[in-house]
Amino acid sequence: MRPILSASSLGLGCAGVCGWIARILYEKQNSIDKNESKIKYNGTPGFPIFGTVSAATPILDTNKTIEYSGSVVNTKPNRISQIMKYGFPSLDNIRSLDDYVLAYDRRNRIAHWVFEHLTRDSVQRNDKVDRSKCEFTEDASIHEYFRSKNSDYKGSGFDRGHLAAAGNHRSCQKDCVQTFLLSNMAPQVGVGFNRDSWNRLEQYIRKLTKTYPNVYVCTGPLYLPRKENDGKLYVKYQVIGANHVAVPTHFFKVVVMETNDNKYHLEAYIMPNQVIDDKTPLNVFMVPPETVERASGLLFFDKLSRSNLVQINGKKTTYV
Amino acid sequence: MRPILSASSLGLGCAGVCGWIARILYEKQNSIDKNESKIKYNGTPGFPIFGTVSAATPILDTNKTIEYSGSVVNTKPNRISQIMKYGFPSLDNIRSLDDYVLAYDRRNRIAHWVFEHLTRDSVQRNDKVDRSKCEFTEDASIHEYFRSKNSDYKGSGFDRGHLAAAGNHRSCQKDCVQTFLLSNMAPQVGVGFNRDSWNRLEQYIRKLTKTYPNVYVCTGPLYLPRKENDGKLYVKYQVIGANHVAVPTHFFKVVVMETNDNKYHLEAYIMPNQVIDDKTPLNVFMVPPETVERASGLLFFDKLSRSNLVQINGKKTTYV
Repeated sequence: MRPILSASSLGLGCAGVCGWIARILYEKQNSIDKNESKIKYNGTPGFPIFGTVSAATPILDTNKTIEYSGSVVNTKPNRISQIMKYGFPSLDNIRSLDDYVLAYDRRNRIAHWVFEHLTRDSVQRNDKVDRSKCEFTEDASIHEYFRSKNSDYKGSGFDRGHLAAAGNHRSCQKDCVQTFLLSNMAPQVGVGFNRDSWNRLEQYIRKLTKTYPNVYVCTGPLYLPRKENDGKLYVKYQVIGANHVAVPTHFFKVVVMETNDNKYHLEAYIMPNQVIDDKTPLNVFMVPPETVERASGLLFFDKLSRSNLVQINGKKTTYV
Repeated sequence: MRPILSASSLGLGCAGVCGWIARILYEKQNSIDKNESKIKYNGTPGFPIFGTVSAATPILDTNKTIEYSGSVVNTKPNRISQIMKYGFPSLDNIRSLDDYVLAYDRRNRIAHWVFEHLTRDSVQRNDKVDRSKCEFTEDASIHEYFRSKNSDYKGSGFDRGHLAAAGNHRSCQKDCVQTFLLSNMAPQVGVGFNRDSWNRLEQYIRKLTKTYPNVYVCTGPLYLPRKENDGKLYVKYQVIGANHVAVPTHFFKVVVMETNDNKYHLEAYIMPNQVIDDKTPLNVFMVPPETVERASGLLFFDKLSRSNLVQINGKKTTYV
């Protein structure tokens, strides 16, 4: 029994009651920022304030305009509507960047998921974009209690691995820079994973834009249970740095490809966050989309008509 | 290396692609239900669709009426506004019951938090309310992928422990019944915790209504990291049943008491989910509120004026 708990025994790097009260000042500043970044946003009359089993919102189905405020990073609702066309996997702490959308998991200090919309044009390399000028940067839109820092990764042995791949956002410098926000990073094994097999998967998905006019991809972490010697299942994952940034056990990608005749193909992948033999074919990591949904707590592509979803993981859907 | 993954190797009880498509039918049914349960809801013009560092929403600060749909369990917005008067700790999968509010963690199959507003009247025992007639019931408002079941708890050795305490909702049978939804349960050690020290904490908070006219309490699970022999920090927790219901390492309660002269006292507690010596005084479990916030990813009582928060954990706040 270990009933005595304090901030320090919990290892939470807590500054105590005093710091808690000091938050007033921080939030006051933030509320000013919020007022300045008000945007007009189309739609969402049916936004599910009291929960729903569906994660989707009818953003494109209305012409109503409602004013929303929030710590919005940019003000391009049309691009966001494009990216999120087939529904939000969840609706919690969602941030819109210029060319991707991110939902943040404040407890684990990394994203729940990021969402991208890729086309042949959007992934085109622009020689004026210089990746070496992009720097890993704290995401100031996230409360400091829940924000990961470069110091958390330093000496951890893990890469700051992109969820929205930098290589998908090379058409302008600003888009590339935004993929280097630390909210878009997760601790990934470097050699053998981030720099190899995970990168292969990213490249494969990017190349799908040569075949399909529109590619939608949702990427995120998983924390999968394992059976231990006592016969029980446990979720176990490392946390790094003073801010306790979670090291996911696995990562997923769920991809929807839109064909020229408005049909859809879907592929879902789960890769373990560990050294993977680079010769392993990518289709070894394919899983039914339901597997990712159950493990992540997310629902993918809710707004996509299932009758037009003609292929899953390379197989015709003869079920509908 | 263990690169080959399938639904079964992940132990996710997955019914495969076929089941994923079958969801269409489920959701179609649900969307009908949703239309039937539309409510008029006051406020939220500033609802932060694209995230904010503050979790609070200005629900009480406006007379605007916006129509929201969702799987709402009841239609009493005024009671919800009362309960949530000082802000939502987070805004994800929120459900309103008649006498408490719950945010659901779909990945862990238990709540993120539940919120209650207690008064001397609301906690009064009504002899017509029969707890023995309350049955632990699946929460049908949660998608079946993410819903806990009685079978998950059976044989696990853990109690189905209430987060919103049944004893706080005894003024009418319906309110008591609603605390028996499995979405309000978490796996708790029975003897020595749920039935003893945790119950003592619940009773203590209930009795605060004899001193204070209004008591607000937020309750939830924690998954705290521990240092292992390799010197690294790990989060580790068991999951039970076919649906992998998380067994939290700890639970928290953050309580705000409103005085007769509109001042506020706050107390925050963290208790480990294990056998606790019943003689341990409750104040041993007190922690700075910031400790709970950092560990849970939540922000508490955002809308409460910090200048009126005159006491934290029994000590005057001389910081402001």
